[in-house]
Amino acid sequence: MDWTAEIDAARVRINGYVRRTPVSEVTGFGLPDPVALKFEQMQVTGSFKARGAFNTLLSQPVPAAGLVAASGGNHGAAVAHAGAALGYRARVFVPEMAGPAKIGLIERLGADLTVVPGAYANALDAAHAYEAETGAMQIHAYDAPATVAGQGTCMAEWEEQGLGADTVLIAVGGGGLIAGVMGWLQGRRKVVAVEPERAPTLNAALKAGGPVDVEVSGVAANALGARRIGNICLGLARVHLGQSVLVSDDAITAAQAALWHELRQLVEPAGAAALAALMSGAYVPRPGERVAVLICGGNIAPDPL
Amino acid sequence: MDWTAEIDAARVRINGYVRRTPVSEVTGFGLPDPVALKFEQMQVTGSFKARGAFNTLLSQPVPAAGLVAASGGNHGAAVAHAGAALGYRARVFVPEMAGPAKIGLIERLGADLTVVPGAYANALDAAHAYEAETGAMQIHAYDAPATVAGQGTCMAEWEEQGLGADTVLIAVGGGGLIAGVMGWLQGRRKVVAVEPERAPTLNAALKAGGPVDVEVSGVAANALGARRIGNICLGLARVHLGQSVLVSDDAITAAQAALWHELRQLVEPAGAAALAALMSGAYVPRPGERVAVLICGGNIAPDPL
Repeated sequence: MDWTAEIDAARVRINGYVRRTPVSEVTGFGLPDPVALKFEQMQVTGSFKARGAFNTLLSQPVPAAGLVAASGGNHGAAVAHAGAALGYRARVFVPEMAGPAKIGLIERLGADLTVVPGAYANALDAAHAYEAETGAMQIHAYDAPATVAGQGTCMAEWEEQGLGADTVLIAVGGGGLIAGVMGWLQGRRKVVAVEPERAPTLNAALKAGGPVDVEVSGVAANALGARRIGNICLGLARVHLGQSVLVSDDAITAAQAALWHELRQLVEPAGAAALAALMSGAYVPRPGERVAVLICGGNIAPDPL
Repeated sequence: MDWTAEIDAARVRINGYVRRTPVSEVTGFGLPDPVALKFEQMQVTGSFKARGAFNTLLSQPVPAAGLVAASGGNHGAAVAHAGAALGYRARVFVPEMAGPAKIGLIERLGADLTVVPGAYANALDAAHAYEAETGAMQIHAYDAPATVAGQGTCMAEWEEQGLGADTVLIAVGGGGLIAGVMGWLQGRRKVVAVEPERAPTLNAALKAGGPVDVEVSGVAANALGARRIGNICLGLARVHLGQSVLVSDDAITAAQAALWHELRQLVEPAGAAALAALMSGAYVPRPGERVAVLICGGNIAPDPL
């Protein structure tokens, strides 16, 4: 796959449907050096997922049966929004662990919603069954080329905004975002994958030499709790990943608190995970290494208002 | 006063002590056109007030008795932080209406705190008495040249960041921020003052032909509830203000909700007031008029975490 061309094409396609999210270099968080941040939680529907959803819908014909997606919440919100914006019916299967805030968000965005008992993988099974039965178009949350290319536009945009970092820290669930990041960067900057200790899909796959099912739980599970890493991500990681690190729930919660108390950014746990790696020492930069952290999602529960 | 020179000098002085806050052009909020936003609530201590506090402390000698300030909360937090950063003792008088979140913030930042019954004006009286008694240096929240010049750096920075707007909407309490904005812009862009209907200090002064005391109340009172407009602001407004508009508490609360639901920015009511003018129609741009809104403060109560 020529990811540079795919992501360039995605940028043109989704322009006008998604936001160019702001960036900033921030001193704080108990860190010795400034860190470059991109506030992708300001994206429409509160996460980067809108990029992949729009790119998918704008790059292929949509059947009369409409769209179907399985989602821990953020992807479902993105599919609901993109579907509504482009005039398609969307059916979203969400696992119970998505929680009432994200479930409410998807409903407000106009999708038909089915809550599935258990974890994300069960919702994905239900979405596949619905796809087979109705002929609806499946928008995969992370392991499809159009999804990955859409997410990659986030990194392309960041470089265009003047990113000066040597290293980029990215939170990983199923791996769609980091796959897009690696696909765009092609090794030009070090990419560090950050996963919760309690949802280490990529880390486990790299250790096992291939995709394995892992148990998922913890504070970020509804966003980073894919049971198995995507094949696209794993393939790119074998060539382009700089490092894989794990962070505890306590480290994630501490980074989430710091983002509020130091920067007035209220984000969901997954949105703070990459910063947690830096704050907790799970990732320690070399002296002089310039580090960037993507803040990827803001759909916190409960809704603060 | 040569405000251009004062603000240029302030920028050099406070560089490294305050953040260059991010900007973005955002489509949403039910508005027909994109609006340019500057997220000044990401400033250290959660509002633009840190700019004026650092500029004051770095531009004049500080007596052994240290600092004193009166504040509805945000200015007090800024003085507490700047004092601690530069090694000065700070005494802050806050009115009860500052509320527990802001009072707690000032305490955590290390200031000596006195809570004064009643509104902001009472806290200002107490601060003046303390200044007379101890010789401490008063850092005025809005009506001193060094404060105004510091706040003006926010507008200078925004222009350097490529602001393309014809018109800038600014929330007004005592008028320090908008004075700095008018001092910097010198009429190059239209400046619109936005005040709560229940704290219309500048609007009332313009109507009366001079500063008058007004009753202050409402959701944004602890940040925008100065009883009387500052003289520096009023003087600049007579020459450079494009328009003065008022917004209801309901309009402020609706804009605050929209900033969270559409952009995942959780701000205090004052931080949403300028956007409220646009969303509510209190300010209606001409066709094609490009509008910018400064998000000025994020210290919401209660603390969402």
